[in-house]
Amino acid sequence: MKIEIYDTTLRDGAQGAGISFSDDNKREIIVALDELGVSYIEVGNAASPADASILREVSDIELHDATPVVFCATRRPSQTAEADASLRFAAELGIPCVAVVGKSSRYQVENVLLTDPGENLSMIRDTVRYLRSRGKRVFFDAEHFFDGYGDDPTYALEVLRTAYDAGAERLVLCDTNGGMLPDVVGVVVNAVRTRLPDAALGVHCHDDMGMAAACSAEAVISGAVMVQGTVSGIGERCGNCNLSTMIPVLQIKLGFSCIPEDRLASLTRLSRKITEEANLAFDEHSPFVGGYAFTHKAGMHIDAVRKRPRTFEHIAPELVGNSSDLLISGMAGKSAYQAVLDRIAPELHISAGSAEFSAVIAKVREYEARGFQFEGAEASLLLVVLEATGIRPRFFDLLTFRVMISEPMSVNPRSLDAAFIKLAVPDGDSVREEFAAAEGMGPVGALDTALRRALLPSYPSLDDVRLSDYKVRVLDSASETTSSAVRVVIESTDSHTVWRTVGVSADIVDASWQALRDSVEYYLYIRKREENSREH
Amino acid sequence: MKIEIYDTTLRDGAQGAGISFSDDNKREIIVALDELGVSYIEVGNAASPADASILREVSDIELHDATPVVFCATRRPSQTAEADASLRFAAELGIPCVAVVGKSSRYQVENVLLTDPGENLSMIRDTVRYLRSRGKRVFFDAEHFFDGYGDDPTYALEVLRTAYDAGAERLVLCDTNGGMLPDVVGVVVNAVRTRLPDAALGVHCHDDMGMAAACSAEAVISGAVMVQGTVSGIGERCGNCNLSTMIPVLQIKLGFSCIPEDRLASLTRLSRKITEEANLAFDEHSPFVGGYAFTHKAGMHIDAVRKRPRTFEHIAPELVGNSSDLLISGMAGKSAYQAVLDRIAPELHISAGSAEFSAVIAKVREYEARGFQFEGAEASLLLVVLEATGIRPRFFDLLTFRVMISEPMSVNPRSLDAAFIKLAVPDGDSVREEFAAAEGMGPVGALDTALRRALLPSYPSLDDVRLSDYKVRVLDSASETTSSAVRVVIESTDSHTVWRTVGVSADIVDASWQALRDSVEYYLYIRKREENSREH
Repeated sequence: MKIEIYDTTLRDGAQGAGISFSDDNKREIIVALDELGVSYIEVGNAASPADASILREVSDIELHDATPVVFCATRRPSQTAEADASLRFAAELGIPCVAVVGKSSRYQVENVLLTDPGENLSMIRDTVRYLRSRGKRVFFDAEHFFDGYGDDPTYALEVLRTAYDAGAERLVLCDTNGGMLPDVVGVVVNAVRTRLPDAALGVHCHDDMGMAAACSAEAVISGAVMVQGTVSGIGERCGNCNLSTMIPVLQIKLGFSCIPEDRLASLTRLSRKITEEANLAFDEHSPFVGGYAFTHKAGMHIDAVRKRPRTFEHIAPELVGNSSDLLISGMAGKSAYQAVLDRIAPELHISAGSAEFSAVIAKVREYEARGFQFEGAEASLLLVVLEATGIRPRFFDLLTFRVMISEPMSVNPRSLDAAFIKLAVPDGDSVREEFAAAEGMGPVGALDTALRRALLPSYPSLDDVRLSDYKVRVLDSASETTSSAVRVVIESTDSHTVWRTVGVSADIVDASWQALRDSVEYYLYIRKREENSREH
Repeated sequence: MKIEIYDTTLRDGAQGAGISFSDDNKREIIVALDELGVSYIEVGNAASPADASILREVSDIELHDATPVVFCATRRPSQTAEADASLRFAAELGIPCVAVVGKSSRYQVENVLLTDPGENLSMIRDTVRYLRSRGKRVFFDAEHFFDGYGDDPTYALEVLRTAYDAGAERLVLCDTNGGMLPDVVGVVVNAVRTRLPDAALGVHCHDDMGMAAACSAEAVISGAVMVQGTVSGIGERCGNCNLSTMIPVLQIKLGFSCIPEDRLASLTRLSRKITEEANLAFDEHSPFVGGYAFTHKAGMHIDAVRKRPRTFEHIAPELVGNSSDLLISGMAGKSAYQAVLDRIAPELHISAGSAEFSAVIAKVREYEARGFQFEGAEASLLLVVLEATGIRPRFFDLLTFRVMISEPMSVNPRSLDAAFIKLAVPDGDSVREEFAAAEGMGPVGALDTALRRALLPSYPSLDDVRLSDYKVRVLDSASETTSSAVRVVIESTDSHTVWRTVGVSADIVDASWQALRDSVEYYLYIRKREENSREH
């Protein structure tokens, strides 16, 4: 039986503290969710100006499995649906589905909406009918449904019936405050099914009790056919239902069908990718997809898992693209390595089982143990592969650099930082020393300019390369920042393609240097590879 | 009805990746758990040399509510209990309770223990009897119970009956692999109660499905009287049942009694303290105790919470010693501002419509236009409010700083960066110049140390403050990094509270400086405000 997975990372997930997506982030997430094979992607809120451009653009993105949805609220009290600018916007978009949120709790209607329960029903009816008349499929999100059902079940059910009769094709029961126990969710979903036997129900849970996954599973067991949630459970307060947990629970543990069976193995990789787009630290203890999810420490457990995996593993980690390695990685298992190698370094023809293959895995693990993460930084991964197989080209060697950070701009607005760099660059059979200096706003900008200035005489194509993004994360919040490692991810572009590189160090400038160096080396390697392939 | 909370942070929690407790940590955690009022504290494993000293010392720690427990395994196959050094050690300790773990899954007995099911029963019987004969209270942890019950319920029940008949006073059903759904846990607990109606049952769950809390709650609803878990859910793989979630769920939501009623309000503080002792980053999205657990961002939600807290809060945060924390963002309206002002700066009595109120909104918008974002950085917001209303105290003025970034660590591993700072610090009616320098791994660490070194003579309380997290984001993916602004968010702590500050600049060091400066100024302002309120 099919259970629809409805992702609201871009709408409800964006309510999480510290989360703000650029349009680029949003496009990447939409494509990744479609690759995962979810049924619906809630792209944005029709009332939010920040969402307008992606809502207009999404119909141009080619989607294979997912259907985009736009979110909006019911019309306002004492107005018509036609008079509501957000509803008109939702109706005019090239998006086939609209999720309408309306109040289903009498308490909320009277104390927050400040209108009477009858008018709330009219608001729901008018809104659904208006959107249906404009050819939209409509899902109705019954806000605070479980609380409302507890306070006044008759009214809560009347709300659902109103939306249903007006043409809503999914009635989504929301635990908006996240305070429900699974037992209660099960009882209420069953009660609703008894009263509205033909309606298709969905569930939208929050994790304020640490029970969003259990409540959603219970709703499905009780007959709901849609689960709303976000990747990695991001969202306001304690977050939304974590789809990276729900999908394997429903598909592997309960035998429902959520996403195409062949996509399950990409769950770990895509969960990481989407979390990266949100610039959030990935929770390595996450069920199923976390780097520690199948990591065993107790000696007894490790022995047992070696003898019989099922002794301490509740599923085979490969099912979700994870592995029981101690390794923290989005990429795991031999077949995953093989797939990545075939994609990023096809010219090397490294096959599973070969000495090169083992050398690559050993080298990647060595880097990962130091805090590197190559998911989302595959340009650096390619260089590690070249290093492991002994063929990383030497475009230059660093002799040294220094950076001087001048007085702060608040003291002197024209203050710039300065970097000096000395490189050894191969020149035929000999080596030439190149020394360059540059100013910049900030140490990384200065260092980047100095590096490229030193290399330009030897590699003029670098003139096209520039940094396009820069991210820093502290790897462990230890007691003093000075002793924590930081991971820097740099995005570079030559206006045609984009690549990302990574560096790890206790010193942010050192970590940035590693990523800058990789960026340049990657570009030079790729140019050389392209020239070689043109010659053959 | 009383439900016993059994903490295994020091034993099963210590199996978590990257966790190792010193004896000092262990003592602090034991004292904090007793202050929280849990029933039992599992102090260590009798077979682990690293636990021997705390197991010997714990009887010297004065405990008011909690009873210490030592953990051990059953005797080995084909030996006597008396011949087992760990069991003899457990019997000789001044600890009144022993938790004995034994296998309850026939599959595990035959494939891991490599003995026959009858011998496993004898091992359990002999071990419990031996410890009972030495005057110990015995709890029996039935490892893999739920899996074992699924495979061979008759044998799993025989294991429980054997331990019970030998004198075990609690039978703890373990979901060792964490793969159970709450429904299954409920059914199995009920089935066991039917067969062993006089036995007192406990439950021990792992979070591999994100359902440890739901499974434990279901076990209690079905009649279990003991819940095992760890503070913050630390533990192997995805962790153990999170007691910081379970205690309020059982006590507030289900009406059981777990800890003395007056201790609930210390849950947030003690959860943080214990996580700190484990040297782990606290998960701010944790249910009940996380810094974001009651944080609202959407304008609509902020309005509603302000009107009626229960509209978007499933419990009153004060019950567990937490507070609602509303985020300021582009979406907030006037009532949201009012709520934030009332909370972060109640001493200013700024009311909507006043000139101060308008000045604050104008100033916040001015900062936001420059790329500042105050959600999740309310310490900086408070300083902006003080600035807008003309009463931001001058604790110090920056005269200048310089940072020198030495050669990279890949060239010289002992290389450290150096910072110099010059401040003007008010000293009575005059101003004193303070100059300080510091080394650090990375420019921000060096600058932070230099800043606090320069201020310590004037403000000794800063000795308690340190950075706990550091995040950087590029604000616009412009064509050149040197022209993009970066936003730095710094998290600081004095071990009791956590606050976040923000800085924005084209230069990462300048942005970091602003956040560092705000962190110190916020702390000094809050200390002063507390002193003032004590005087009144």
